[in-house]
Amino acid sequence: MSKIPSVKGTRDFYPDQMAVRNWIMDGWRAASVRNGFVEYDGPIFEHLQLYTQKSGDEIAGQLFSLTDRGGRDLAIRPEITPTLARMVNQQINSLPRPIKWFSLPRLCRAERPQKGRLREFFQWNIDIIGSNNSEYADADCIYTAVDYLRSVGLTPDDIIVKISSRSMLAALLLGLGFDREQLDTIYVLLDKRPKLPEETFMALAEEKIPDNSLRKKLLDILDNCNDIDILVEKVPDSVQDNIEDLRVLLDLLTQLGIEPYCQFDINIVRGLAYYTGTVFEIFDRQSQLRAICGGGRYDNLLAGLGGPQITATGFGMGDVVLEILLQEKNLLSTIKNELDFFVVWDDYHTFERVGLNIVNQLRLRKYSVAFDYRRTDDALGKQLKQASNQNTKFAIIIMKDEIKANKTLIIKNMATSNQKTALLDDFLSKPDNYMSNNELNT
Amino acid sequence: MSKIPSVKGTRDFYPDQMAVRNWIMDGWRAASVRNGFVEYDGPIFEHLQLYTQKSGDEIAGQLFSLTDRGGRDLAIRPEITPTLARMVNQQINSLPRPIKWFSLPRLCRAERPQKGRLREFFQWNIDIIGSNNSEYADADCIYTAVDYLRSVGLTPDDIIVKISSRSMLAALLLGLGFDREQLDTIYVLLDKRPKLPEETFMALAEEKIPDNSLRKKLLDILDNCNDIDILVEKVPDSVQDNIEDLRVLLDLLTQLGIEPYCQFDINIVRGLAYYTGTVFEIFDRQSQLRAICGGGRYDNLLAGLGGPQITATGFGMGDVVLEILLQEKNLLSTIKNELDFFVVWDDYHTFERVGLNIVNQLRLRKYSVAFDYRRTDDALGKQLKQASNQNTKFAIIIMKDEIKANKTLIIKNMATSNQKTALLDDFLSKPDNYMSNNELNT
Repeated sequence: MSKIPSVKGTRDFYPDQMAVRNWIMDGWRAASVRNGFVEYDGPIFEHLQLYTQKSGDEIAGQLFSLTDRGGRDLAIRPEITPTLARMVNQQINSLPRPIKWFSLPRLCRAERPQKGRLREFFQWNIDIIGSNNSEYADADCIYTAVDYLRSVGLTPDDIIVKISSRSMLAALLLGLGFDREQLDTIYVLLDKRPKLPEETFMALAEEKIPDNSLRKKLLDILDNCNDIDILVEKVPDSVQDNIEDLRVLLDLLTQLGIEPYCQFDINIVRGLAYYTGTVFEIFDRQSQLRAICGGGRYDNLLAGLGGPQITATGFGMGDVVLEILLQEKNLLSTIKNELDFFVVWDDYHTFERVGLNIVNQLRLRKYSVAFDYRRTDDALGKQLKQASNQNTKFAIIIMKDEIKANKTLIIKNMATSNQKTALLDDFLSKPDNYMSNNELNT
Repeated sequence: MSKIPSVKGTRDFYPDQMAVRNWIMDGWRAASVRNGFVEYDGPIFEHLQLYTQKSGDEIAGQLFSLTDRGGRDLAIRPEITPTLARMVNQQINSLPRPIKWFSLPRLCRAERPQKGRLREFFQWNIDIIGSNNSEYADADCIYTAVDYLRSVGLTPDDIIVKISSRSMLAALLLGLGFDREQLDTIYVLLDKRPKLPEETFMALAEEKIPDNSLRKKLLDILDNCNDIDILVEKVPDSVQDNIEDLRVLLDLLTQLGIEPYCQFDINIVRGLAYYTGTVFEIFDRQSQLRAICGGGRYDNLLAGLGGPQITATGFGMGDVVLEILLQEKNLLSTIKNELDFFVVWDDYHTFERVGLNIVNQLRLRKYSVAFDYRRTDDALGKQLKQASNQNTKFAIIIMKDEIKANKTLIIKNMATSNQKTALLDDFLSKPDNYMSNNELNT
């Protein structure tokens, strides 16, 4: 029978890789919970229309769509936000506010696979919906992302959160003399800048902003005002209120203790049209990789997706770029599947009479336990090899004669190879004492 | 903008439902790990051919299939076993044996939704691959299923594991005089019996087994031999070895301490052709629901799916029927999202100066903490209402004057309404002492 491969751009998670994926996702979940978010999820597919009703979106061109037996057009979710809008809308009158929700969806996009981009990936999403004041909610969003990243060992030397404000940028552009109709074009232009050679960018800028003086004024501010105190001096009065809001946000992040991770960066724009306030992106300090995380305030997005007209702020963090960074920083090397105990024997009848009960007693107390599945008197060495393959901490060795004469077992630390005789009842009554025993561990 | 609903047969997991789903899946994962299994996963979709190459399967008729931009035919996975066969096959020479793997896949089947059956669901799968001896591996499979079910509070009064052997049944049928070609037809017939009215079954039996004497002999054994000692007396000598194997399996389950959950039941057949040895199903004691779990030995299945020729035993347990049972037994009532601390204030400037640091310090120590996102001097009652909405255990009340005069806070148990003054530094150095404080908790 022919060998059928996996689909290009998808991943197989063998146990070693799955341990890493679980470690990342458990970390996301734990950070969400300790910052007061509750988890939700929707189906893996939705009606196609949920994704296409908002036209002009890059994502709509990357859908895996399907038709069910009833002829309905469906699509595998490329993002969770339309599902979020649908779910919030369905229960808008009964959900207490603010809605602080997170999700860890598996998403699929029919993109060309490349470094940091796959056709199937996981994404941590958090959203704060229906909270009127932007600064506290925006600050807690950014804090939550950083709280996760520092919890896995990333320091301010490894990553940086670049923060700006879409509303500040809009006020600035209008204050400089741009028309409101030009704004979306300029957001896209500025968002592309870090990804383009400077020459290409300048040519594109000339095309999109033909007015030389206006273009120069804008680029001068973008290139020289990453310090808020300098920015304040250079911009029109109409922008001052927005700058003040940004100062409040940055002060809150300082009080929250994550200042070393954060900086104002006027060049952070986010390409998508829907952002209305704070915007931020998180990068590796060397800027070698795509953004690890991106988010901000999008007070009109849910309504645009058929949901309620309600304020919202949040972010998305994918697993692919994150895992590359964690790998590079050597933060994944200790993650592995382990086993507490592996029971071995020299006589399988004795194992069945005495050992199976030990297995049950230990598992009942939540220890992980395994044993050889060959119902024979297999060589101890072969059984210990299996224990070693499973990263076992301690082998429990049951010898027929010792059990019969003294009711004793041997406990062996698989890492140190030290072993110690134990009375069966004493071991079963306090296995922790043996696991932490000095003779065994040093 | 139009309101687009979810797709029929799928579920939205709002936070309350998600808490239940996570509790179920965390339990599956914990039981798998403590029984020595390691987790794997594959992509949500595979090449369509992976599912259709094995013809005649009911599942192939229930596929959600799609075509990608390259014109490739794909399908959302309706089961994980073909992926398992593919993955094991790809690394067959480097995987140490036995392979003890589990997975918690999301699966989709284009079935008509009904009680206990949805078009999207989760399924716990465990598999032991490449272990030569069937009894130990089969026993540990059944043990693992029971270990999970008892860990969530189901007792032998709630559920029963019914166990038989496909190889024993085959030997019995051949011994009675059936032809080998008839066997698959009879498996399907017998598997249907519990789901049909007795009259309908008898008519079908007459059609499939026209020989009156043969049919009566078979039904007599099926109806009267659920005791192995009686079975032994009634069957041809050629079946005795198989019965002996079954006795060994049942003895092992007794030594493992789960005898009260298990019984031999000759009527357990499993409909699918691929089972080769032990078969089992788990039911609620009242037999009101579909099977909670089904499994057994299938030594030729992986090869049939394009994988290696290798022995295997395992089971699948879906979340839908399980959740109905857990609900009926009132075992889900205490599962909810909770929060350790909610910080409230009478003056938001004080909160920013003192409270944000408390938030950070507690979250760094893995406590879950939230606060009101309105940057105002909101009424304490309104803030405490939010705390209550989030099932908060303790409110931390920051009063401007108390902080200023004495550096004290108020800690309030939200369940008992008891409160206690605390020195800020003392609280921060040992929050656990306050969480377990008698004054607060009684």
